[in-house]
Amino acid sequence: MTEQPTLAQVAAAAGVSPATASRVLTGSVRVSTSTRRQVYDAVSRMGYVRQRAPRGTAAKTMADGVTAVICDHLPRLFSEPYYARLLSAAGAVITEHGTHLMVTTVTPTSSTLPALSGAVLIVGARERHPLAIKLSTSGVPVRNIGRPPHDLKLPYADVDNLDGGRQAAEHFLLTGRRNVAAIGGPPSLPAARDRLEGLVRTLQAAGAPDVPVAYGDFTAASGTHAMQWLLRHAPGLDAVFVASDLMAAGAIQALRRAGRKVPADVAVIGFDDAPVARHTVPALTTVRQPVEELATVATRLLLTGAAGIDPVLPTELVVRESA
Amino acid sequence: MTEQPTLAQVAAAAGVSPATASRVLTGSVRVSTSTRRQVYDAVSRMGYVRQRAPRGTAAKTMADGVTAVICDHLPRLFSEPYYARLLSAAGAVITEHGTHLMVTTVTPTSSTLPALSGAVLIVGARERHPLAIKLSTSGVPVRNIGRPPHDLKLPYADVDNLDGGRQAAEHFLLTGRRNVAAIGGPPSLPAARDRLEGLVRTLQAAGAPDVPVAYGDFTAASGTHAMQWLLRHAPGLDAVFVASDLMAAGAIQALRRAGRKVPADVAVIGFDDAPVARHTVPALTTVRQPVEELATVATRLLLTGAAGIDPVLPTELVVRESA
Repeated sequence: MTEQPTLAQVAAAAGVSPATASRVLTGSVRVSTSTRRQVYDAVSRMGYVRQRAPRGTAAKTMADGVTAVICDHLPRLFSEPYYARLLSAAGAVITEHGTHLMVTTVTPTSSTLPALSGAVLIVGARERHPLAIKLSTSGVPVRNIGRPPHDLKLPYADVDNLDGGRQAAEHFLLTGRRNVAAIGGPPSLPAARDRLEGLVRTLQAAGAPDVPVAYGDFTAASGTHAMQWLLRHAPGLDAVFVASDLMAAGAIQALRRAGRKVPADVAVIGFDDAPVARHTVPALTTVRQPVEELATVATRLLLTGAAGIDPVLPTELVVRESA
Repeated sequence: MTEQPTLAQVAAAAGVSPATASRVLTGSVRVSTSTRRQVYDAVSRMGYVRQRAPRGTAAKTMADGVTAVICDHLPRLFSEPYYARLLSAAGAVITEHGTHLMVTTVTPTSSTLPALSGAVLIVGARERHPLAIKLSTSGVPVRNIGRPPHDLKLPYADVDNLDGGRQAAEHFLLTGRRNVAAIGGPPSLPAARDRLEGLVRTLQAAGAPDVPVAYGDFTAASGTHAMQWLLRHAPGLDAVFVASDLMAAGAIQALRRAGRKVPADVAVIGFDDAPVARHTVPALTTVRQPVEELATVATRLLLTGAAGIDPVLPTELVVRESA
């Protein structure tokens, strides 16, 4: 085996200072999108590992495979395109490493642990999720997709949900929207909370009025219901930020039925840049999250047994027609 | 625990003779659709088990869960609606039993076995599939969804693919079609072969001409390509039987592009009764297979450790507009 690259070598390859590279890798400080991409590219290319997990982890993982534990109901595994994108990308990395991907689902309140061997990718762990708490203390190599809840200490990889919410808010402000509402995901899910917080903080800092919020569960139907609720409780709204594209598609349907034109009367911004975003009428302006890249980075870090690196990948506003 | 019901009690509950009930349960003789339904209903209701697997199987399964091994490429797990229907139904049974479903995929030629514990449902095992051969001799409780290939001895549950092909052929004959072609699934997959064989046998018995066949891999794109091939090699065709609804949707596109009207010029019958069958133009006439029921029966038999019962569930032609 060749020697492990050092942080200084990674920084040099990325064209940044070691201090900047370190900040990117700990995810603790805002760094520009392009800088982060350069550092993560260098990490991926060079196989940099900041701190090794206990010896033998990687070898054990190879033999026993990787289990992806999706914290959601089983039929959602097939109806939510996010999981297909995530697991297909993770599976490609795992196959390259000559081992197997297993997928299982647990409900967000489940406390019984499936028999797990090998390493574990957790997707969508909620606050006080008994299963995630057990896993975090089980000694099994584990990595969370998404920032873990505050009550859990787990290595993770995430996308910058907070910054995605900020970008949506800035776009609304720059295009003259004043009465912004939001449809959030489940409030016990950190990713959903971060998207909302990024939006609300930015609007507040600009002196905009309070943001009325309705919550959904990431399905299109829940987006429709949440939008109907908002139209009743905040009829003066002229913009809505929706925490997933499927919910945004549902919200656009509710707006059409209520006779509100998108974007003339109400601007809509989604989150994901899922395939559906190109097929809504009008086409959806949305915050793109790099799902495949997220899965690839998280799976590589899990398989190499790396510790001390919790990457947060940049999100990016994609402007189409709905806002 | 209450005493196990006897075959005679099951037969009485189903309103058939014990001999008929036995024939249904061994899948060895043609019995009418309604009789089979009655017997399977009685088996499900009463929890009949024809012969117990070694003691302890069921208890071990409960602790270690069930792994569904899908013999297909990972992205197909999400793009093929058959798997979503099958696994959602299996998952419901497994959850009722207080245990967990794991899902993994292996390519049709893979010989490396993921680390498996508990019981195993295999879906889509092909001939000379190294993995299925290993599983069939591993001592792990296992059940195949679909008749296993001839080189494998595995308990299974299946739908009557042969009879589905027969029903399609009879519909073509009754509606005056003479030049019938077919688009088959992968020829190493028993289900695909049975569908084709049921069609061809019935047409031959009626003195119809030879059936030109093209093969696809169950994707819509492969249906389009296969149809284009058939139009070049058998331009006089006036009917086509397609071994899956997704492929049939692709075939209809190819026919439209070639200027052939469905069903006026070419009648099309699919297989599955998947959601897409209602959305093709014209709506698809197809052979319905009871996917959810198949998964439920197979999973129950696996979890109870039953042996000696290999149910074959009836299929049924659903006539819409395309034939």
